[in-house]
Amino acid sequence: MEAAIQTGPEQLLLELFAIFVTAKAVGEIFERINLPSVLGEILAGAVFGPYALGWVPASTTVHSVAELGAIFVLFSAGLETSPGELIRIGGKSMRVALAGVIVPFILGFAYMKLRGDNTQAVFIGAAMVATSVGITARVFADLRLLSTETAKIILGAAVFDDILGMVILALVGGLAAGGVNWLHLGVLIGEAAGFALFMIFLAPRLVRRIEPGVTHLSIQNASLVVALAICLLLSWLAAKIGMAAIIGAFFAGLVFADYAPEWNLFPRVAGITEFLAPFFFFTIGSRLNLSVFRGSLLVDAAVISLLAIASKLIGCGLPMIRHGWRQVLQVGAGMMPRGEVALIVALVGLQSRIVSQSAYAIVVLMTAVTTILAPPILRYLFRQEILEHQDDNVTASVQL
Amino acid sequence: MEAAIQTGPEQLLLELFAIFVTAKAVGEIFERINLPSVLGEILAGAVFGPYALGWVPASTTVHSVAELGAIFVLFSAGLETSPGELIRIGGKSMRVALAGVIVPFILGFAYMKLRGDNTQAVFIGAAMVATSVGITARVFADLRLLSTETAKIILGAAVFDDILGMVILALVGGLAAGGVNWLHLGVLIGEAAGFALFMIFLAPRLVRRIEPGVTHLSIQNASLVVALAICLLLSWLAAKIGMAAIIGAFFAGLVFADYAPEWNLFPRVAGITEFLAPFFFFTIGSRLNLSVFRGSLLVDAAVISLLAIASKLIGCGLPMIRHGWRQVLQVGAGMMPRGEVALIVALVGLQSRIVSQSAYAIVVLMTAVTTILAPPILRYLFRQEILEHQDDNVTASVQL
Repeated sequence: MEAAIQTGPEQLLLELFAIFVTAKAVGEIFERINLPSVLGEILAGAVFGPYALGWVPASTTVHSVAELGAIFVLFSAGLETSPGELIRIGGKSMRVALAGVIVPFILGFAYMKLRGDNTQAVFIGAAMVATSVGITARVFADLRLLSTETAKIILGAAVFDDILGMVILALVGGLAAGGVNWLHLGVLIGEAAGFALFMIFLAPRLVRRIEPGVTHLSIQNASLVVALAICLLLSWLAAKIGMAAIIGAFFAGLVFADYAPEWNLFPRVAGITEFLAPFFFFTIGSRLNLSVFRGSLLVDAAVISLLAIASKLIGCGLPMIRHGWRQVLQVGAGMMPRGEVALIVALVGLQSRIVSQSAYAIVVLMTAVTTILAPPILRYLFRQEILEHQDDNVTASVQL
Repeated sequence: MEAAIQTGPEQLLLELFAIFVTAKAVGEIFERINLPSVLGEILAGAVFGPYALGWVPASTTVHSVAELGAIFVLFSAGLETSPGELIRIGGKSMRVALAGVIVPFILGFAYMKLRGDNTQAVFIGAAMVATSVGITARVFADLRLLSTETAKIILGAAVFDDILGMVILALVGGLAAGGVNWLHLGVLIGEAAGFALFMIFLAPRLVRRIEPGVTHLSIQNASLVVALAICLLLSWLAAKIGMAAIIGAFFAGLVFADYAPEWNLFPRVAGITEFLAPFFFFTIGSRLNLSVFRGSLLVDAAVISLLAIASKLIGCGLPMIRHGWRQVLQVGAGMMPRGEVALIVALVGLQSRIVSQSAYAIVVLMTAVTTILAPPILRYLFRQEILEHQDDNVTASVQL
């Protein structure tokens, strides 16, 4: 009864196989030369994707699978972050997020204002604020450092600044449409804040309430089924109220974090993430078109990329200054990678014809540079923690 | 960098959430009234799908996800079937498959010949031969009986008769095109036989060879990654040479079956299957349009459905006669459900305008009846084994 499914299943399966294998193969090569495998998966997309060799023309279905991959990367990261912990480190995360939004915006805006008109400057500044929580989560997962305090501060801050990024997107989107709709903006801020507060403070209590009911369900894997249903629901809800779906997925993970060991969620969700995530990172890479950079555009792009790095190091590092220089650099570098939100901001500007092709290209290069540089820098800055956690992890993976 | 992904992610997420939750909710209700949950998932599709309430208009992406779901149902079933065991029970499975192809074809052809012309009779006979290995595998997985000898004989036979069904499809497809291409048919038979023999006898040895290499890979979850890559590859290959993709997925599981415990594949693959399979079963249900049945068509459809049940009971049961009546009935009932291959045969006929709308409707009803009746009958016939296996499974799920 899967007749329509049979229309060209070969093509889809071949695409999925090609993406999965090239992503994992380049990831393996990267691991062997001591670079993070996520970087290899992104590079595989850039090399084999439509802009370069063109071997893998990612279809709509692949993009949907990639979206699910992003959702499970964040859901997995959320599962490792207990709400209690997020509340404890929440103040630090908020300060890091806020400073990490203000400093990049000001630096990006100021430089582009010197070079051109106001609107371009506002858009590029806005594109510089949001850390890519997907890439950050994966890098720390690969380094097996998700359980460290610093990783949790960074991840919490990345989630908060994604929320702030979405608010800024509504602001610049209003600019693009000819005027900011302050009511709409107020509603969005209210929804985002309400959603985050509800997920951190109330939702975990609701899960505690339904927990006895879940253990009495008759279907197999009932706990996993409930967690997956909530993950899909919150991802949709987050997208619906104007935030990124992955923010919802992160909060869904957070809500189940305290029950993950008891409900045996880790190995089973890890299986799903392992299958779907490579499509997300490959797709990220496949959108990079490096051939548009020439002349003065290259100078602007390089400067903006440097400012994007420096502004997060300064902005996000400063709130951590009394914890010592090492943590300043760690947090700053952890907040460096830009991704989906930056590109959405740029696309909104491009589609409403307010942002030029060159400003768009600058944002794309900035996301590429920060995404590519962050993993090796983080591996270097966290080299001590990686050594310390190696023994624990060997034990943990044997138990798994 | 997932800009295009962002175009309407809400719609897709909402569809996925709605399908997942309705499938699982109806499945839960069915479990509580002692019916198999897979039946509930199929019914959810029939009730909420486009032909009835129309709440969930399954999109192309959902169909692709459903296809992946079918692949993982078969991959999981293959993981529980060691190649050595399949070789041991292979003779029995082959006899069950062969008799279960011949008897249904003759009965279906004979009845329809009495009622109409030759070609319709050939198509309906052909649609009656292939057991739905996807539904069979899921029913035994739900009953936790996949490890029993009878389940393995049935699953092996279902795989063999799917291969035979594909050969018959090429035969009737040739008829539809105006003449059988005997060379093409010979190549298909050769490819199918070669594929099956290679997967059962040689591929497991290859896995034994690469096994030390897999343990030395640097990426995380390397064993799972290798298994998933092979699963996608073989699914594509099977579809490419004219068999169903799910046959390739089953053989991929078979190849890794002996390493599944050591490589810790079960919980992680189970997570993927749990997430994706509901979309497959929901989609099966969503294709049922029961409103076309009226008058004499209903009589024909009822007779063909009865013949479909009786012919598998007789054909598949007979080779088991010296093992006693209980096993005759168990194997016959296990081979009852028809599914994807039957509908593909009917669709090929319909699309080439050789099969009438009413013959198509008869096949659809036949698949529905056999699919819906098989699970409760199996649960009844296996009630003793279910009790015997309960203690083992409690231990197993605690370990998991």
